[in-house]
Amino acid sequence: MKRTELFTRTEKSIGRDIVSKNAELLTRAGYVDQLMAGVYTYMPLGLRVLRNIENIVRRHMNELGSSEVLMPALHPKAIWETTGGWDNIDVLFKIKSRTNNEYALGQSEEEVVTPLVMNRAPSYKHLPVSVYQIHWKYRDELRAKSGIMRGREFFMKDMYSFHTSQEDFDRYYQLVKNDYLNIFAELGLTAKVTEASGGSFSEKVSYEFEVLTDAGEDVVYYCEACDFCVEDEIAKVKPGDDCPRCGKGVLKEAKSAEVGNVFDLGQKYGKDFDLGYIDEHGKKQFPIMGCYGIGISRVMGVIAEKYHDEKGLVWPESVAPYRYHIVMLPDEQNRAAAQKVYDALGADNCLWDDRDEVSAGERFADADLMGCPVQIVVSRKTLEEGSVEVVSRSGKFDKFMCKLDELNMIVERSQS
Amino acid sequence: MKRTELFTRTEKSIGRDIVSKNAELLTRAGYVDQLMAGVYTYMPLGLRVLRNIENIVRRHMNELGSSEVLMPALHPKAIWETTGGWDNIDVLFKIKSRTNNEYALGQSEEEVVTPLVMNRAPSYKHLPVSVYQIHWKYRDELRAKSGIMRGREFFMKDMYSFHTSQEDFDRYYQLVKNDYLNIFAELGLTAKVTEASGGSFSEKVSYEFEVLTDAGEDVVYYCEACDFCVEDEIAKVKPGDDCPRCGKGVLKEAKSAEVGNVFDLGQKYGKDFDLGYIDEHGKKQFPIMGCYGIGISRVMGVIAEKYHDEKGLVWPESVAPYRYHIVMLPDEQNRAAAQKVYDALGADNCLWDDRDEVSAGERFADADLMGCPVQIVVSRKTLEEGSVEVVSRSGKFDKFMCKLDELNMIVERSQS
Repeated sequence: MKRTELFTRTEKSIGRDIVSKNAELLTRAGYVDQLMAGVYTYMPLGLRVLRNIENIVRRHMNELGSSEVLMPALHPKAIWETTGGWDNIDVLFKIKSRTNNEYALGQSEEEVVTPLVMNRAPSYKHLPVSVYQIHWKYRDELRAKSGIMRGREFFMKDMYSFHTSQEDFDRYYQLVKNDYLNIFAELGLTAKVTEASGGSFSEKVSYEFEVLTDAGEDVVYYCEACDFCVEDEIAKVKPGDDCPRCGKGVLKEAKSAEVGNVFDLGQKYGKDFDLGYIDEHGKKQFPIMGCYGIGISRVMGVIAEKYHDEKGLVWPESVAPYRYHIVMLPDEQNRAAAQKVYDALGADNCLWDDRDEVSAGERFADADLMGCPVQIVVSRKTLEEGSVEVVSRSGKFDKFMCKLDELNMIVERSQS
Repeated sequence: MKRTELFTRTEKSIGRDIVSKNAELLTRAGYVDQLMAGVYTYMPLGLRVLRNIENIVRRHMNELGSSEVLMPALHPKAIWETTGGWDNIDVLFKIKSRTNNEYALGQSEEEVVTPLVMNRAPSYKHLPVSVYQIHWKYRDELRAKSGIMRGREFFMKDMYSFHTSQEDFDRYYQLVKNDYLNIFAELGLTAKVTEASGGSFSEKVSYEFEVLTDAGEDVVYYCEACDFCVEDEIAKVKPGDDCPRCGKGVLKEAKSAEVGNVFDLGQKYGKDFDLGYIDEHGKKQFPIMGCYGIGISRVMGVIAEKYHDEKGLVWPESVAPYRYHIVMLPDEQNRAAAQKVYDALGADNCLWDDRDEVSAGERFADADLMGCPVQIVVSRKTLEEGSVEVVSRSGKFDKFMCKLDELNMIVERSQS
């Protein structure tokens, strides 16, 4: 994409107070625009990042064998009354139509997915079933001060599984857990798994996937020697204790952000809707259900929190809006060379700063702020030697010169 | 995809009353599931159709040079008060939070996009700008009886353009009009363009893209000889009149469904928000705006209305969930051959009915109901000659036999 085709702009600073680093950087770099607290527009580059995260998550869910569906956000009141959520879930947005029908806005979809699946699974032979969706959700948050990490409107992958036994749920949970850790690793995040209370969803335990970051709203105690991690709220240990799992490490305290969760829902929803299946012995049973979330817009915020420096964003390659940022210094001759680079690397892989009348300093500052992994500097000085300069935004590789007739080298050397 | 991996099922008939053909067929074939009137879950195959339509529309918008963004569905009350929509638009869903903040659910996004763009376009040099999004929208409809053709929750592409003159808007409208007609043609629909009143949006004319179908809620008078078409509500002609455009044809009356629209918004929104730009003479001006919609979920419904027969759906190739449906008759030997076909054509192109214990008749009926364009029948009878039978769902080509070691022929011959 050419920069002149972007209607967005970058900003040196934000006029109003923005308390969270992710909102500040994403706004300054032109990735998002706040409409109100906890509600953001995703601008062209921000939307590319969001879609990259979405597509990584989708690929993993499909590999797990889960079926993608898309459930409504507008729910009839009746299904929320059936489960007790209408009166008990304080973040549920409620709507009254002009004909006095009442609706809820989806903040989780057990109320929709339970009838959807169980009406099609009359027998144990139809189970297990796993379905997921990637959709916008709504929460009536009292405070929404963590940028896109806590939205009143947020983008989420939620998967639901239905099993004939606790053992089968446990088996599936292990698959999902491994998959989640792989997903977060692919997104550049190291997630720790904690056990926590199930909140309003369940009397059973939940599992939370936490990324250590000062921007997080949770506090965990974790072992530096093994993968033990627990939320402070339910911890029977304290910082400084020996690790109860490995016995070798000492527990440390850290702030963390929840990027994923798993709820063992037990039989609650099948029982609430009186929707069961017939088992091998001809007897009606209720399914054991699991719910598995990944906050996609939140993950984008967490990545921004983890991957930035004083100059701006430093996107991991897996989610970067563009792999290459062509920093063309002002000069007509440079334009022809930049065009050559753009054509060689592909318009879908490059952000080309093709603006006139912008200083070199401003171009470099923008490239650093926007954070594409590889910067390609097109300047008269190096063109005299037939070359462009290739710079890693993260410092992953040493900068190098690349001849204009050997541009494939950029692709190869910047990956190593 | 293998049929046994689908948790959905087909139904011979629908128990409850469904007045619209699209809802009946899409429900019976397992493409959608109604949660309440005007609100549907998209099941795995239905979601594939919806995404196919979405991606065709997106490609055209990108080719037009419009920038994709994603604006929120949750809007603060203030922006709707600014434009008068809070009190005047009866289909606007309103929400009150637990702290008594009031929000609207987006049913169109002029209130969001005007500040979004104009805050970044201080000068005439920044215009024109065109942005679009593909997102869910909400309308408090009194009646929602047309299946997915009129949803309380619906999926839409909405584009907005900002210009310095009426001439520039007119120029852009012509581009979009041609593009829209190409999009609908690619989707298998012949759209007629009408002029109609601008509704609550605008005092100016709007342009509507109508597809003739008895399932539609509009009535148009159109000329069979040329492209003249007008909505009955604003028509100064009547059925039987000579065509006022070409003078050759006679006007006929037909029901039609609106699949796209264009509103000439004039300067309303710039003025409402007092957001203008500085022109060449240093004077503040308000932009001329256009709004361009395509109802993506509605288009899916219209396609279902236009493309079906007494046996079920007959998807156009451009939107079909899978190009090939492998109808495997029950026999162990057939399974190996079906696997070979599946591998050769690709899992992403095939729906393979790999179920055990289902009769041949049921398999054929399902394939006809689900409507994939090319059916590949794997039976013992033809396998004795080393062949499978290839059948066109639409009758586009005569059925033919294809040797198992020449499966590429299926791809070639079924396209011609």
